[in-house]
Amino acid sequence: MDERVREHAETLVDWSARIEAGDDVVVSVGVDAHDLAVAVAEVLGERGANLVTTYDSGELTRAHLLAHGGAFETPEHELALYENADAVLRLSGGRNTSATADVPGATRAAHDEARKPVREAYMDTDWVGTLHPTRSFAQQAGMSYEAYRDFVYDAVLRDWESLAEEMGGLKAILDGGSEVRLVTGETDLTMSIEGRTAVNSAASVAYDSHNLPSGEVFTAPHATEGEVRFDVPMTLRGERVRDPWLRFEDGAVVAHGATENEGVLTDILDTDAGARRLGELGIGMNRGIDRATDTILFDEKMAETVHLAVGRAYDACLPAGEAGNDSAVHVDLITDTSEDSRLEVDEEVIQRNGTFRWEEGFEE
Amino acid sequence: MDERVREHAETLVDWSARIEAGDDVVVSVGVDAHDLAVAVAEVLGERGANLVTTYDSGELTRAHLLAHGGAFETPEHELALYENADAVLRLSGGRNTSATADVPGATRAAHDEARKPVREAYMDTDWVGTLHPTRSFAQQAGMSYEAYRDFVYDAVLRDWESLAEEMGGLKAILDGGSEVRLVTGETDLTMSIEGRTAVNSAASVAYDSHNLPSGEVFTAPHATEGEVRFDVPMTLRGERVRDPWLRFEDGAVVAHGATENEGVLTDILDTDAGARRLGELGIGMNRGIDRATDTILFDEKMAETVHLAVGRAYDACLPAGEAGNDSAVHVDLITDTSEDSRLEVDEEVIQRNGTFRWEEGFEE
Repeated sequence: MDERVREHAETLVDWSARIEAGDDVVVSVGVDAHDLAVAVAEVLGERGANLVTTYDSGELTRAHLLAHGGAFETPEHELALYENADAVLRLSGGRNTSATADVPGATRAAHDEARKPVREAYMDTDWVGTLHPTRSFAQQAGMSYEAYRDFVYDAVLRDWESLAEEMGGLKAILDGGSEVRLVTGETDLTMSIEGRTAVNSAASVAYDSHNLPSGEVFTAPHATEGEVRFDVPMTLRGERVRDPWLRFEDGAVVAHGATENEGVLTDILDTDAGARRLGELGIGMNRGIDRATDTILFDEKMAETVHLAVGRAYDACLPAGEAGNDSAVHVDLITDTSEDSRLEVDEEVIQRNGTFRWEEGFEE
Repeated sequence: MDERVREHAETLVDWSARIEAGDDVVVSVGVDAHDLAVAVAEVLGERGANLVTTYDSGELTRAHLLAHGGAFETPEHELALYENADAVLRLSGGRNTSATADVPGATRAAHDEARKPVREAYMDTDWVGTLHPTRSFAQQAGMSYEAYRDFVYDAVLRDWESLAEEMGGLKAILDGGSEVRLVTGETDLTMSIEGRTAVNSAASVAYDSHNLPSGEVFTAPHATEGEVRFDVPMTLRGERVRDPWLRFEDGAVVAHGATENEGVLTDILDTDAGARRLGELGIGMNRGIDRATDTILFDEKMAETVHLAVGRAYDACLPAGEAGNDSAVHVDLITDTSEDSRLEVDEEVIQRNGTFRWEEGFEE
């Protein structure tokens, strides 16, 4: 086994999820994430944690959803599993990223809605999502398997403490700010961040960060106005969506489009009322991720990008006791800010053309 | 996909587990049982059942157990999963039947002991175990993959209603009997079945039968006396055990041995007090299974064999409210009765040299 698989597992269990003896851990295993799962099981054993492994297969989900009549119920046994879990480690790793492409959006939405309590219980745990490099992901990234593995481990096996410190500066600016404006190309969007708390997403639950790799600072915007176009290409629900755009009025999407597979976007926005409002504004800060690979886990962390998610907001960004945007979905979309762009907080430019104001080369 | 995979899934969901709309079902997926899992997910969707899939990998279990310090606790999240499940469908299908061969018996025993409440919750569901034909199982059976698939589907896709009727006759004899004696080769064993109820194991929870395929009649003996040798070769916990034998006094094992890997048997017997007493006497009646394949699911159902299990007894064989033999383990061992044998109930021979008294060719 590649020694980096073991290092990945250690980073996940220790730095990211902070697993301790006696913790009840669920490990979700993608069909081809077996090697990482074995390494994670070993590290969990060393830490004295308890283990339940679930099987994550797009083909299986597709078969179940397509055959089901559509009157989905909340699965009480799955709910009980997550309600009694301390942590969930999700190891993505399929064989075909389009495995569920032909499941109708309405079916997914009905299923998502019925599983909302399960999703909430899951998110109440110390959950962390990561990815095992598979040939399928390499293909989606347009890379050889060997090069893709290097890409993944370069992004995952980082000095997370150092990156956390670097990102703390941007968090401080956002926490003290009221309004964010993003301008680039056809995008001109204004969002309120008044009263919201930014998350220094340093790939650890200790930072309210639930992705490995991470390397972004995000918050939960509201009162969104204007238009935004997402030019980083990506696959949503198994379909390539090109250049999606959203127009906001009074915080909600009032118009949208895409040059390819617009219907996927429509299905997402039609899930529920919250799916038409933003749940997240994220600013990529991981300069170890040097290219878009059509995998949200990496793309949204890429330096010189900004992403927005329609749907559910993370509680960590909200004042205690206050509910943020609620939805059964949380779907991220990404804009390239490397050229012809500015990101402002309260009318002060904090990033121009991909360079932050505290970085060398920033033009005032 | 082989059409028989779909038929297998239908038999499992409908005949065996009797799944209905809204049932909360756990499907345990062996690493290479993916195709059957997809077919089962489809049939469960058609029936309107809810689905959680768990991942069953010997390599993963081995990694966790070997790394763990040994102070195992009951995993509360796994317990909650099964306590809230209506049914569990276990689809065996690994890549290496010896994957856990180097896990020490004491470690397994400690793990089994800590998971006893989980096992009990699991067995309180409408659980069914079946097997997807894999290359690994074919190898263990000493058969080509193609021939092994035919073997499996011939055993699984049967007229279960007709077989259930045939087995009802033997159940009636056992239910009315007090003592069973098995004599063959070096074996001469006497067991009481007084007050116990035999199960007509027709591969359906409706018959208190939890295996697909099945085709055996079994009960829970007690007060066992004498010696028994098991000459059907089998792999226990990843190790080939040859010709194991047990000597009983006052219902408990007082001596044991094997010509190969005796230590595995010793580890099993040392699990707890109940592991030294019988939990099951089973009589194989499936004449569709025409050879031993070193897989207990099939071997114990084979016609012209009798099997005994040390460890836990099934509640279905016991008078209401009465506890039978209790243990963290249930391990089956098989004796060939095709030659030089007789099986008696209250001193009446009911099978001689593999032929039942109601079958053609029986010698009084």
